[in-house]
Amino acid sequence: MAAKRMGKQTLLFDSKPAILASACVAGKKESEGPLGATFDYTSDDTTFGEKTWEKAESRMQKDTLGTVCNKAGITTDRIDLICAGDLLNQCIGTSFGVRDSAVPFLGLYGACSTMAEGLLIASMAVDGQYAAHAVAMTSSHFCSAERQYRMPLEYGGQRTPTAQWTVTGAGACMVGAPTGGTLPRVTHATIGKIVDCGVTDPSHMGGAMAPAAYETIKAFWEDTATKPSDYDLIVTGDLGSVGKSVVEDLFKSDGIELKQRYQDCGIMIFDDGSQDTHAGGSGCGCSAVVLCGHLLERMRAGVYKKLLFCGTGALMSPVSAMQGESIPGICHLVALELV
Amino acid sequence: MAAKRMGKQTLLFDSKPAILASACVAGKKESEGPLGATFDYTSDDTTFGEKTWEKAESRMQKDTLGTVCNKAGITTDRIDLICAGDLLNQCIGTSFGVRDSAVPFLGLYGACSTMAEGLLIASMAVDGQYAAHAVAMTSSHFCSAERQYRMPLEYGGQRTPTAQWTVTGAGACMVGAPTGGTLPRVTHATIGKIVDCGVTDPSHMGGAMAPAAYETIKAFWEDTATKPSDYDLIVTGDLGSVGKSVVEDLFKSDGIELKQRYQDCGIMIFDDGSQDTHAGGSGCGCSAVVLCGHLLERMRAGVYKKLLFCGTGALMSPVSAMQGESIPGICHLVALELV
Repeated sequence: MAAKRMGKQTLLFDSKPAILASACVAGKKESEGPLGATFDYTSDDTTFGEKTWEKAESRMQKDTLGTVCNKAGITTDRIDLICAGDLLNQCIGTSFGVRDSAVPFLGLYGACSTMAEGLLIASMAVDGQYAAHAVAMTSSHFCSAERQYRMPLEYGGQRTPTAQWTVTGAGACMVGAPTGGTLPRVTHATIGKIVDCGVTDPSHMGGAMAPAAYETIKAFWEDTATKPSDYDLIVTGDLGSVGKSVVEDLFKSDGIELKQRYQDCGIMIFDDGSQDTHAGGSGCGCSAVVLCGHLLERMRAGVYKKLLFCGTGALMSPVSAMQGESIPGICHLVALELV
Repeated sequence: MAAKRMGKQTLLFDSKPAILASACVAGKKESEGPLGATFDYTSDDTTFGEKTWEKAESRMQKDTLGTVCNKAGITTDRIDLICAGDLLNQCIGTSFGVRDSAVPFLGLYGACSTMAEGLLIASMAVDGQYAAHAVAMTSSHFCSAERQYRMPLEYGGQRTPTAQWTVTGAGACMVGAPTGGTLPRVTHATIGKIVDCGVTDPSHMGGAMAPAAYETIKAFWEDTATKPSDYDLIVTGDLGSVGKSVVEDLFKSDGIELKQRYQDCGIMIFDDGSQDTHAGGSGCGCSAVVLCGHLLERMRAGVYKKLLFCGTGALMSPVSAMQGESIPGICHLVALELV
């Protein structure tokens, strides 16, 4: 086995790369939710001052990159690597968002797991001494996602109870060697395997991704010989209320009660009662803004000392759905610790 | 600066991870070209026995993964990581191709630079001891690409002289610690920056990507203090005849004559005179099958001892083109040496 590997799927980061800073921007609906105060800025304009929603998504990434650099006190010429991607066809939210940065760039496609995947690769690059500073970043936009994946918004299509609401937002983490002081650090990461349990309903993404989350979290505990009570919080990306209950049930069948220790970013970001988002939030931006705002803030404040961030993604497309394919899910886990 | 970094963009792989095996499959047109004999298998059926071209692309990846495992004598349960992606929206060629493998999977989007990007990340994972065996893989398919990016094939649309022909094919490399014997080894990799010179014609991809190739190759030589004559072959991914001449001209303006030392996979794969592919081949599969077949075969035979593989990608989408955006290019370089 490779020296920095534990078990089959988990990477061990001896140096515990630090998250030197994090930043996030979000839209109007997100600003009205329970985490509204944790975003660096929000915009009431769905286009963020741009001509199209796709360009708005690039603008969010560009602004988030600038903000995370400012917060970390690191200029873009000192960044060795950006690991980023998004949900748009050919990831144009990202390409045009980082185009002018002149930073070495690795494009990712992990669907809504991209924040975790980017953080995993950025941490590997920093821990392995291939990069001094690496940024992990992603975004999603309700309007660009709806028109690409579902219906033009103007149709006013009905949504099913299991449907989720794509978050408008972008988040970024600056990863580097620790500079002193107490910071959230990346200690391990578990690379997900694709899990496909045969769900074919594109309005039931949470249920499609839940088994992948279960498999990755279970693999992490096996690989590291740890257990749920070793962590203050286990948080999945965007399973929403339906997917979250599937994860709870799967662990229950193993005799494990996750209880209040387990949360989901898709549930945390919107108010279930007043915001009419059905099963909750989704999209790359969902777990990104919840991690880069609320969760890392709570870690820095010492509320959470050990946290498992489990990004979940549905690796389908409208074409694969129309061709009768089921929805493959994936989950990448990043273990964070306040050190 | 990070210990395993040379200059601004280049990674140094001290352990020189080996390419233990490579495999590739391709379509009928590719089998009729100059490199036809170097593919592990080719199919006269554009659907590779599947119901759709998208499923055919997944089938090619699945078969290529199986073949590279057989050739390396490594079963899938011993692979720690697959780094893969493709050109289809949401990379479904890859997701459904690797779905049944049960191998930890990192999804990439690097457009036609994906083979180089995957090889770079797989080599970093092996060199850093995060993985014992890592596979880099990608694919493209003429028919699925045409209908997604351009026109339904049934329209019989005219192609411009600068247009390229998307290669139907998939390629994979198995990267691991050297097992003895002389093998192609990965010594360095240069992570590309996005370069956008304002080309807006989606039928002129070679020209749009050429400046990125020039910038990355120049950065590699500066970072490693080497020069063109230190390498037996410098090969770009899929610039085709137009893009290749742009790279030659850019280096000429620096006083550097690349001459016969420089080739392009897009030119090598088809016969210019008889195959009517205009400026040459393109697509993720283009550089993948030329590397995994012909180039690595020539390295193993000792014909090339030092080779620079420079994957080139155009990070646009039909939507970004319709919204008036220019075409951002990227090039990732992987330095190979027979050791």
